[in-house]
Amino acid sequence: MATQEKTPVENAQLKDIISHAKEYGFIFPSSEIYDGLQAVYDYGQMGVELKNNIKQLWWKSMTQLNQNVVGLDASIFMHPLVWKASGHVDSFNDPMIDNKDSKKRYRADVLIEEKAAQYEKDGHYEKASELLVEMGKLLGAEDLDGVRELIIKENIKCPVSGTTNWTEVRQFNLMFSTQVGSVAEDASTIYLRPETAQGIFVNFLNVQKTGRMKVPFGIAQIGKAFRNEIVARQFIFRMREFEQMEMQFFVRPGTEMEWYEKWRDTRRQWHEAIGVPTDKLRFHNHEKLAHYANAALDIEFEFPFGFKEVEGIHSRTDFDLTQHQELSRKKLQYFDNDLNEEGKPYGNYVPYVVETSVGADRLFLMVLCSAYTEEEITEGDSTKSRTFLKLHPALAPVKAAILPLTKKDGLPEKATEIYNDLKFDFSLIYEDRDSIGKRYTRQDLIGTPFCIAVDHQTLEDNTVTVRDRDTREQVRMPISELKSHIDKAVSFKTILQKLA
Amino acid sequence: MATQEKTPVENAQLKDIISHAKEYGFIFPSSEIYDGLQAVYDYGQMGVELKNNIKQLWWKSMTQLNQNVVGLDASIFMHPLVWKASGHVDSFNDPMIDNKDSKKRYRADVLIEEKAAQYEKDGHYEKASELLVEMGKLLGAEDLDGVRELIIKENIKCPVSGTTNWTEVRQFNLMFSTQVGSVAEDASTIYLRPETAQGIFVNFLNVQKTGRMKVPFGIAQIGKAFRNEIVARQFIFRMREFEQMEMQFFVRPGTEMEWYEKWRDTRRQWHEAIGVPTDKLRFHNHEKLAHYANAALDIEFEFPFGFKEVEGIHSRTDFDLTQHQELSRKKLQYFDNDLNEEGKPYGNYVPYVVETSVGADRLFLMVLCSAYTEEEITEGDSTKSRTFLKLHPALAPVKAAILPLTKKDGLPEKATEIYNDLKFDFSLIYEDRDSIGKRYTRQDLIGTPFCIAVDHQTLEDNTVTVRDRDTREQVRMPISELKSHIDKAVSFKTILQKLA
Repeated sequence: MATQEKTPVENAQLKDIISHAKEYGFIFPSSEIYDGLQAVYDYGQMGVELKNNIKQLWWKSMTQLNQNVVGLDASIFMHPLVWKASGHVDSFNDPMIDNKDSKKRYRADVLIEEKAAQYEKDGHYEKASELLVEMGKLLGAEDLDGVRELIIKENIKCPVSGTTNWTEVRQFNLMFSTQVGSVAEDASTIYLRPETAQGIFVNFLNVQKTGRMKVPFGIAQIGKAFRNEIVARQFIFRMREFEQMEMQFFVRPGTEMEWYEKWRDTRRQWHEAIGVPTDKLRFHNHEKLAHYANAALDIEFEFPFGFKEVEGIHSRTDFDLTQHQELSRKKLQYFDNDLNEEGKPYGNYVPYVVETSVGADRLFLMVLCSAYTEEEITEGDSTKSRTFLKLHPALAPVKAAILPLTKKDGLPEKATEIYNDLKFDFSLIYEDRDSIGKRYTRQDLIGTPFCIAVDHQTLEDNTVTVRDRDTREQVRMPISELKSHIDKAVSFKTILQKLA
Repeated sequence: MATQEKTPVENAQLKDIISHAKEYGFIFPSSEIYDGLQAVYDYGQMGVELKNNIKQLWWKSMTQLNQNVVGLDASIFMHPLVWKASGHVDSFNDPMIDNKDSKKRYRADVLIEEKAAQYEKDGHYEKASELLVEMGKLLGAEDLDGVRELIIKENIKCPVSGTTNWTEVRQFNLMFSTQVGSVAEDASTIYLRPETAQGIFVNFLNVQKTGRMKVPFGIAQIGKAFRNEIVARQFIFRMREFEQMEMQFFVRPGTEMEWYEKWRDTRRQWHEAIGVPTDKLRFHNHEKLAHYANAALDIEFEFPFGFKEVEGIHSRTDFDLTQHQELSRKKLQYFDNDLNEEGKPYGNYVPYVVETSVGADRLFLMVLCSAYTEEEITEGDSTKSRTFLKLHPALAPVKAAILPLTKKDGLPEKATEIYNDLKFDFSLIYEDRDSIGKRYTRQDLIGTPFCIAVDHQTLEDNTVTVRDRDTREQVRMPISELKSHIDKAVSFKTILQKLA
């Protein structure tokens, strides 16, 4: 019996992933019975377990492995001045342009980027890079008329109408707004947070003081954020409603680069520890830094649609805390007693911040793409193919399936007994329908690491067969050993200990 | 040494709870540096751990203890027709009235209720009940002019201006709305979900089919919901942004009452299992049923401000699924093969639904109120008082504090060794500042069940003292026994096994 396993990237086409995710209860289009809501998705019964496992593992890696990292759960609604201070009200924009003939709207920068990509494809590399540089200059100077002229000069046409009959370019803010309070004069506009980070910054002193934290320390948070993306695509990669897992690490000014490097390496190690092949990951240093950053990089994963950002590591300086300090007129400073003891003149400062920011949904998609495996199994002369999710057992939605071979002879009772003994420790499935082979196949498709078959021998000697998802090998084992056998494979500890 | 423990309700005034929650990192006012955002709160470093533990325990109780309950995580954004079908667009309203002199806005029904309460206080019980009945009739008939006349007839005055110069009564919808898509013609109004239940209903068939679920089965979900409450008050009891934990259980029509009773009892048992005293809980049957229900009750807890709803158990009939079926024109029916096999004529039906719906934030407040304990400790002639959080150890944010007696002689190294051994299993605190007594006090205030002191004897014989939060008793124990000692107390299993 020979097994030839294809690498995930060769076979994991996005469309395969999408239909697999739908068919086996991982991801459903939102409000599907009403024909869906664009760029919004729901996590099904398998998806929610996988996502929860990813989130909990991240949370433990941050808050349990690090003495100096604690959690936070700030609200989605925040005071509108938060987004004034952060710069989102004034500049969290995409430049939009409409074609007057087709009435279709586009991101002006995306139109130009696509033109540059076309130049590259045609071998005009210099032209491509010149175009991108010119666009960068115009956007930097907020010269929207210039952007429009560039589009017309380059003869960029609307893909629908085929014309260059363009409106002017306007900035479109990506924040969702709503009215809070009653419709009377006291109602006010608030925003759905476009990032979770600001909830950490405005609570910096609350956490530092009530938790008696000493710099350097970090605050970790998992939560929803919302962006009114015009061009939302690639499944759950870019959604209007998404979930972030962010950790802001507060450090002494001047020490930020060593922490930046430390967290960069720690986070990459984390992705590898959950089973993502190292050659599918890469760092991508930002050449153009955001105004608040003095160093930044992305951790990218090779999705079926190319290398794309999964996580960002940013050295954000004291930009955010200083902005909030100015607008709120509250001091957001830390008194560093150790500095005082070292004889340094003055220990009061606004800390610098190193951020690790990962998209929970992108992580989910990365894990799914890494796990989706097709293999060909040759047995004698015949060859058949098998699809299975090679998820790290600690992340798998279901840890074990309990499968009575038949529905009679007391096997269901015995299987139920085993189920009831293990259910306090693990997420399980009990299944007595279909042939045992079909049941194995189904568990492979949702990534269940262990299938426990209860047969007639079980009634005699209290042993079961345990089938391994990846090797398809079956071993006979006493029921009394099941718990530790499963636990060894599925415990978060196996991952956390690698990271310590 | 005698201990006299006051009952929580005697001492747990809401203001004590609020300031304790703030001071020890459980709950902060949202955007506090900008003077806060009304009726919105953030969970601090201790609060987020407590809340996560509550959520995870609920999740395991639902999905792991029940073979036929699975999870779901639907998005906050849903198609607008969902809220048309559910009735929220048309009737999720509060009747509002403005005073023309003070420009203040009130809920008309609350003004009348307060008048009735005044009648009762003055001994006019009949007048009070007559007034409430009359209001009920007017609201039932949607006679808003009648409501206004009643307010004027009863001479109800604005508490601010003292006048009866009232505007007309208008319905105010409690859903938050926002615009999705760009500002062009394709933008559309969507709502922030006011309840999580509808995410389950619209996914009913997706989960049933992809999970091969057989009726009866349940879908459990935890998620944020939003209501533009006009009168938001009582700390985190009624917030504009809040979190629900709901389980919708789909059953054969005609069997709903037995499931309603089953889940009512199961859920009450759950509250008791996490340590809420049984005399602080009660059932409150709804006399007036919502249009979709054929039975409903609240599980109420005695908060410092009286018995209030924590959880609702509702028999929702087939109302929701039928509504969605009509509006979406998609069949939301279940083919019940077992019915067929029983020889019943036809097995296709829209299932009935029994719902358990609990507010995660209210549960949090209930747990905090139950745990907040002041006791007087008499030692010889002197008496001192102690405040501590008597949280169920499985819910406590921090499971153990590792406390080296001094910062020298190798004690920190030994303590760190213990910390590093236990950190994979438990959420810990390492603390070497202040006297050991002060450190114990601080751990009491955040509810840490175990304090592990590392002293000079530890270096000699590898034993530590373990102090119990509730009894304050210290026992000497080998380091090697710590893990199982803590685990026995803090594992979710201790609670889950009670519930099985």
